[in-house]
Amino acid sequence: MSILGIDIGGTQTTVGVADRSGKLLLHKRILTPNVLGPMMNIGMILPAADEVVRKQGERVKAIGIGCGGPLDRKTGTLHKVSNLPGWEGICLTEIFSEEFGAPAYLDNDATAAAMGEAMSGAGKGVDNFVYFTISTGIGGGIIIGGKPYRGCGENAGEFGHMKLSDEGPVCNCGDRGCLEAYASGTAIARIAMEGLDAHPQSKLGSAEEITAELVASAAAEGDEYACEVWYGAMRNLGLGVANVVNALNPRRVILGGGVTKAGEMLLEPVRQVVEERAMHALVADVEIVLAANGDLTGVMGAIAVAMDAIGAANVI
Amino acid sequence: MSILGIDIGGTQTTVGVADRSGKLLLHKRILTPNVLGPMMNIGMILPAADEVVRKQGERVKAIGIGCGGPLDRKTGTLHKVSNLPGWEGICLTEIFSEEFGAPAYLDNDATAAAMGEAMSGAGKGVDNFVYFTISTGIGGGIIIGGKPYRGCGENAGEFGHMKLSDEGPVCNCGDRGCLEAYASGTAIARIAMEGLDAHPQSKLGSAEEITAELVASAAAEGDEYACEVWYGAMRNLGLGVANVVNALNPRRVILGGGVTKAGEMLLEPVRQVVEERAMHALVADVEIVLAANGDLTGVMGAIAVAMDAIGAANVI
Repeated sequence: MSILGIDIGGTQTTVGVADRSGKLLLHKRILTPNVLGPMMNIGMILPAADEVVRKQGERVKAIGIGCGGPLDRKTGTLHKVSNLPGWEGICLTEIFSEEFGAPAYLDNDATAAAMGEAMSGAGKGVDNFVYFTISTGIGGGIIIGGKPYRGCGENAGEFGHMKLSDEGPVCNCGDRGCLEAYASGTAIARIAMEGLDAHPQSKLGSAEEITAELVASAAAEGDEYACEVWYGAMRNLGLGVANVVNALNPRRVILGGGVTKAGEMLLEPVRQVVEERAMHALVADVEIVLAANGDLTGVMGAIAVAMDAIGAANVI
Repeated sequence: MSILGIDIGGTQTTVGVADRSGKLLLHKRILTPNVLGPMMNIGMILPAADEVVRKQGERVKAIGIGCGGPLDRKTGTLHKVSNLPGWEGICLTEIFSEEFGAPAYLDNDATAAAMGEAMSGAGKGVDNFVYFTISTGIGGGIIIGGKPYRGCGENAGEFGHMKLSDEGPVCNCGDRGCLEAYASGTAIARIAMEGLDAHPQSKLGSAEEITAELVASAAAEGDEYACEVWYGAMRNLGLGVANVVNALNPRRVILGGGVTKAGEMLLEPVRQVVEERAMHALVADVEIVLAANGDLTGVMGAIAVAMDAIGAANVI
């Protein structure tokens, strides 16, 4: 019997199969650009999940699905999710449960990732931490007393829509000034694009398509404009983390999601901003680290959700 | 046997005596401007507390002290508190414990106030709420699962130092762009002062000293400049509340502290901003209300801290 995990993102989706101890045995990543809408994307996710399940060969005991919020965990249905336009009202648990003949459990992807890091990652043994996913969008997960804190409507942790300014850039959620509009992968690429004409000397200008990854690598190579964009975004990310540190006084902040592949180039400036801007007594309590599960954090999280739901392990 | 509560603020301090059920029997408010420093202020608080205790006539069983954070609850000592310059390292519990021959317990004033509202106020029966004190500074208290959430170093809830901008006005904490520097009583008065020369027609110009209360009452009477200052501050307060709603998905937000004496003039714009700017699913879950204990919220909180510490009541 195996556990199937599905981490649905606005750009890509990872499916994976784990054994009953939570060890990931097989996984597959596919591109699921949100512009294609839910039906086409689900039409690609189902066969990818089928493929890993077939390859692994055991029957699926439970399915965990991680997805951007807000969502209704009890009914397995999405609300209006900023990075999945058109998915509102879709009941993901029903779709996957029917396909694999096993119970399916939906959770906020960042809460799921936090649970995954708690089970086998940078949150192991840490009672009180927050998780930021910095990816197509920005999401948050909160672990308090060793358990996910979900809030009264189970949608806590929307750190990506924290306003860092009354005005500011337009966010995918339709509002302005959100952390996500300053420091997500999408935002970094957009900011780089917007200023490109004014920086003809930047090597970003020769790129076919600008991504956050490209901005990070150009910045690492010393491209001045790329540095300006990258470290500007890291400054805002640091402010967002500082605000959460001030509010929740966590023991650890774990940073995961695609943009964190930049490693120290992300971690160092964020640490520095938090040290400068959060309250000293609270800075002294907190460690800021990268997710230990790397780019498998999301799918490990989805697996942790399923394991937690069926009581298959002391997840946290 | 009575419970003594002491709520120390940057502008005034309230001392009060309650019976063992938590009912406030007597209280007294004195001015304690933080510019006078800790020794002079404590020198005024002690006789005021003595006076209410003597008048009430019973022996003090326990003392609760609420004070701006960050602080060390275990040792009863203050860290560097932005609104109490010079108080760092002072062990408040020792001073009051010696004076009254009873155990003293220190807590963050906003956490204390949240506990007081949970015991007998707008938080009664609400499992999951946040409290904002909007006063000389801005502080926060968090109740999760019916208990104060304090964070790993017991200094969670520093909502006042949430950055609403990378730059922005200088805060009492020494940083810039904090909610407290935009929307506390001190900030409202300062903002009004700063723009006064450019608004000679405003009736605020004839005031000997501008306070947030004066700005609110001039705004209520239609003074255009006062409206601009007041509603600008309320907009920023609303953003701060929206950010906390997005992060914690609370059932209720309780607003207390001196500035909330403005009542509907504070509540309405804050509600409106939260409705516009926080995520819809989370807005639907939350009620935003004023503290039920009014200007006794702080001292009722201090009493709740003492009662909770000695197990005198099911405080929360």
